[in-house]
Amino acid sequence: MSPRGEKHPISTQTIRRLPQYLRIFYNFHAYGRDLVSSTTLSEETHWLPIVIKKDLQAVGAPSKLRAGFKVAGTIRVIEQFLGWNNLNKAFLVGAGHLGEALLGFDGFQAHGLQLVAAFDVNPEKVGQQVHGVPVYHTAQLSGIIQEQSLKIAVLALPASAAQGVTDTLVAAGIRAIWNFAPVNLVVPPDVVVQKEDLSSGLAELCARLKSR
Amino acid sequence: MSPRGEKHPISTQTIRRLPQYLRIFYNFHAYGRDLVSSTTLSEETHWLPIVIKKDLQAVGAPSKLRAGFKVAGTIRVIEQFLGWNNLNKAFLVGAGHLGEALLGFDGFQAHGLQLVAAFDVNPEKVGQQVHGVPVYHTAQLSGIIQEQSLKIAVLALPASAAQGVTDTLVAAGIRAIWNFAPVNLVVPPDVVVQKEDLSSGLAELCARLKSR
Repeated sequence: MSPRGEKHPISTQTIRRLPQYLRIFYNFHAYGRDLVSSTTLSEETHWLPIVIKKDLQAVGAPSKLRAGFKVAGTIRVIEQFLGWNNLNKAFLVGAGHLGEALLGFDGFQAHGLQLVAAFDVNPEKVGQQVHGVPVYHTAQLSGIIQEQSLKIAVLALPASAAQGVTDTLVAAGIRAIWNFAPVNLVVPPDVVVQKEDLSSGLAELCARLKSR
Repeated sequence: MSPRGEKHPISTQTIRRLPQYLRIFYNFHAYGRDLVSSTTLSEETHWLPIVIKKDLQAVGAPSKLRAGFKVAGTIRVIEQFLGWNNLNKAFLVGAGHLGEALLGFDGFQAHGLQLVAAFDVNPEKVGQQVHGVPVYHTAQLSGIIQEQSLKIAVLALPASAAQGVTDTLVAAGIRAIWNFAPVNLVVPPDVVVQKEDLSSGLAELCARLKSR
């Protein structure tokens, strides 16, 4: 690969900002706009134009000199970068309050995830549908994962149950886990775990409020 | 203030890790341990000992040479740093799926937040209780905020409704907003907004899965 074509790893911060760019470009696309300047993007996001330019150039967003980024082309490269141009089948383990909220989250399909099944041990939930998604008993996990070739799991379980379920998932061939349980999962190096922790956001809010 | 006593600003990354340290120290405290080494903390968190040492020293965690951090003292300084030693009254706007999940999240009290009210426009919700928290009509926001001297709002609203409600909150004297709506709120500089965006975590997961 030539030096110019060399791929620099893209930072986590950039990756985390991509969904917001995508939302804004979708809006401009809906209004029939062809080009959006980094100044306009800065007004929408409150991020610096230089940060925005670097982010979008990192994923190869097409632009027109002194006019801005091309709307349709930028949508395409961000979707491709994140794999959101294809729907990936995923499933949820834990259909409690948080699990139900996740099943009701409209954004999954737009973000390339299709939740096709949910698992729980609660006899009142098993056999029902939540937001149109069937709930199975957790004992059926391995069978259904293999039957439907599922690769992505969303975990909304209590901390105490999370590692045990994770071991089952890994044995059944799961490649990626989006973890909402407040615990660090132990997985083999070829399994990707993305942890969400509400208390981190709350800590940030409290620290900023205290420092005022 | 002397140079040694000068306060360095503590990084956002450090602040976001503090809740996890706190959880681990609570556990060790429950088991009667007095000291925990950074090596042990590294095994629990999967973070490097040097990162852990810097984080805990930044908030002034007391330690014993070559033995580790003092459990009770470290709990106290982290709680103080985050203001989690006092309960702050907060309220929720938007009692849909996500709002209900947030009302059912056991962690709030442990993290210094007491959700004392929820607001929604849905006539099926108004007048009811969700997880023991009363739901009022959104039209009552200003009155109840002032009556109960509330300063912290948790927003779990659709994007289209978020800015309008935020303007009402700011006018009523709210100091901090934990925003789960997928939109950048415009607020005066003295109001703290902490934004949570599920799609950022999902983007990170997808990008990491694709790069394998």
